[in-house]
Amino acid sequence: MAFFMNEPMNIIEQTDTIDVCSDAPIGVFDSGVGGLTVVREIMRQIPNEKIIYFGDTARVPYGSKSKEVVTRYSRQIVRFLRTQRVKAIVIACNTASAMALEEIEKEINIPIIGVVRPGAKVAAEVTVNGKIGVIATDATIGSNVYTDYIHQINQNVQVIGKACPLFCPLVEEGLLKDPVTDEIAMRYLTELIDIDIDTLILGCTHYPLIRSTIGKIMGDKVTLVNPAYETARELKELLTKENMLNEVKTGLGTNKYQFFVSDGAQKFQTFANSILKYGILSAKVINIEEY
Amino acid sequence: MAFFMNEPMNIIEQTDTIDVCSDAPIGVFDSGVGGLTVVREIMRQIPNEKIIYFGDTARVPYGSKSKEVVTRYSRQIVRFLRTQRVKAIVIACNTASAMALEEIEKEINIPIIGVVRPGAKVAAEVTVNGKIGVIATDATIGSNVYTDYIHQINQNVQVIGKACPLFCPLVEEGLLKDPVTDEIAMRYLTELIDIDIDTLILGCTHYPLIRSTIGKIMGDKVTLVNPAYETARELKELLTKENMLNEVKTGLGTNKYQFFVSDGAQKFQTFANSILKYGILSAKVINIEEY
Repeated sequence: MAFFMNEPMNIIEQTDTIDVCSDAPIGVFDSGVGGLTVVREIMRQIPNEKIIYFGDTARVPYGSKSKEVVTRYSRQIVRFLRTQRVKAIVIACNTASAMALEEIEKEINIPIIGVVRPGAKVAAEVTVNGKIGVIATDATIGSNVYTDYIHQINQNVQVIGKACPLFCPLVEEGLLKDPVTDEIAMRYLTELIDIDIDTLILGCTHYPLIRSTIGKIMGDKVTLVNPAYETARELKELLTKENMLNEVKTGLGTNKYQFFVSDGAQKFQTFANSILKYGILSAKVINIEEY
Repeated sequence: MAFFMNEPMNIIEQTDTIDVCSDAPIGVFDSGVGGLTVVREIMRQIPNEKIIYFGDTARVPYGSKSKEVVTRYSRQIVRFLRTQRVKAIVIACNTASAMALEEIEKEINIPIIGVVRPGAKVAAEVTVNGKIGVIATDATIGSNVYTDYIHQINQNVQVIGKACPLFCPLVEEGLLKDPVTDEIAMRYLTELIDIDIDTLILGCTHYPLIRSTIGKIMGDKVTLVNPAYETARELKELLTKENMLNEVKTGLGTNKYQFFVSDGAQKFQTFANSILKYGILSAKVINIEEY
C-alpha cells in the first residue's frame, strides 16, 4: 500500500483492503515514557507480539495541550507507524486517546484502540455504589471523555474527575515513594475520598507507577482500575477476533521490540529499562515533524 | 528585506543591511510563560519599547530536550519574529539561550541576546568568595553554559550547577508559597549551602517567581542574581549604543504589546495577567511548525 508522507492534514488511505499479516508488529505510542506501562502489559498478556513504540519525548507533555495540537501530533505519529507496516495501533496515552482517537479511527483502515474506553468499561462494571473517580491530566479531565464513555454504558453512574498535574513530573523525577508525593497525592485525592467513590481510574499512564501511594491513601474499599492492563486485554480480544494474533514465537534478537523517540534516546532508555523486563538495546531518534 | 518561510535548516539573510527603525518592536521568546518575567523587566526599564512575545506553549518545556531540538525550535521562532519586523531579539529562555544562541547569532543580522550571558557577567562581578551556584533545568545545567561564560570572565571562580526539574511544574501549578515547594527547594539547595556559595543565579525564567522561598533558604549572605533584570539592562545598553532606542512614547492601545503562543491562549493569558502590570487583551495562537 502506498503511503504519502507530509500529507498536510488528513491521513488518506489508498485502499480499503487491509494489507497486513499476523506477524506484523503492533504500533504503540505515547507522549513520552508513560505508555511503557501499556507496553509492559502487552508484553505480559500477548508475549508473541512484536511492538514498535514511539514516544514523543520532544513534545511531551500532551496533558496541557489543546485538542487541535494533540490531534495534529497524533496524526504525525500514526503516519510514522504506518511506514513501519504495523497491523494495529494502540494509543497508549490517555490525553491522545481522549482527544484524537475518534477522529483518527475514521481515517485509517487498521484497528486502533485507546486506553480510555477499556478503562471506562471496566470501571462501569465494577462500581457498586455508582461513584467513580477519575484522576488524569488537565487535558483528559477537561475533555470529559471518561464520563462520556461511562455514561454510554450506564447513565446512572456519577463520575468525578480530578486533574493531578504534578503527578507526572514527580514520577519522572523518580519520587515514586516519597513524602512529597504522599503530600501532593493526599491533597489531590481528599475530595474523592470525601465523595465516597468506590472505584478510581488511574487515567494517566504514569500513575500505575505510584499505584501503591494512591492505594494507601484511598484505602482497601476503593478498587483501582489500571487502563494499561485493560487495554492489553482488549487488544488481545480484538486480535483474536480479527484472526490477527501472532501465533509464532519471535526471539528477542530479531527486532521484536523497537523503540523510537523524538528526542533524548539515552534518557528514554534509562527510564524504559527501569520499568520493562527486557533491556532495551537502543531507542532511535526520528524527526516526527517530517511525517 | 525579503524573508523566506519554511527554509529547511538555516536562517538565510537576504541582505547585509539592517532594514529596521527605532520604533520597530523587540521580539522576545520563551518555551512558554517563564519569559514573561523578562518582558516584565523590559517594560519597567525601557517603557517606550514595543514588544512581540512568542511563547512555545505547545512544545514546552525545553529544559528536558536536546540541543538539536531546541535549536530547531528556536530557528522556527526567530523566523516567525522576523516576519513581524522586529529590530532586536531577546531569547528569554535559559535553555534556548544556552543551546541555540551561539548558532543563531551567526545567522541573522539584527542584534540578538540571551539571558545567560548577562546573568553570568553580573554573578562573576558580585561574588566575593569565588563560589557561584547556578540553579536551572536539566538541559541548562548539562550544557555548562553558565560555567563557560563565567570562566571567560574569571577563570578562578568555582561554579556549582544544580538542576531543579520540579520547580517549573510547581510554579505553573501556582504553589509559589507552599510547604511542598519549601521542602523540594530545601532538598535542591542544601548542597549549595553546604558548599558555602555567596552568589546564586536563578537560571530559569520561572525561578524569580519563587525568589522569596529560595532567598529564605539561602539566607541573607547569598546574593540572588536574576538574569531577567540583567538582560533588560543589557538590552537597554545595546539599543542605546546602536542608536535604536525608541524615544517616542507609544500608547497601550496601539498594539504596543503583542503576544503569540503555539497553543492554549486562554491559559497563557491568565498566567500573563497574574504577573504583568498591563492586562493582555489577547494572545494569538499560531502554528509555529510552519515557520
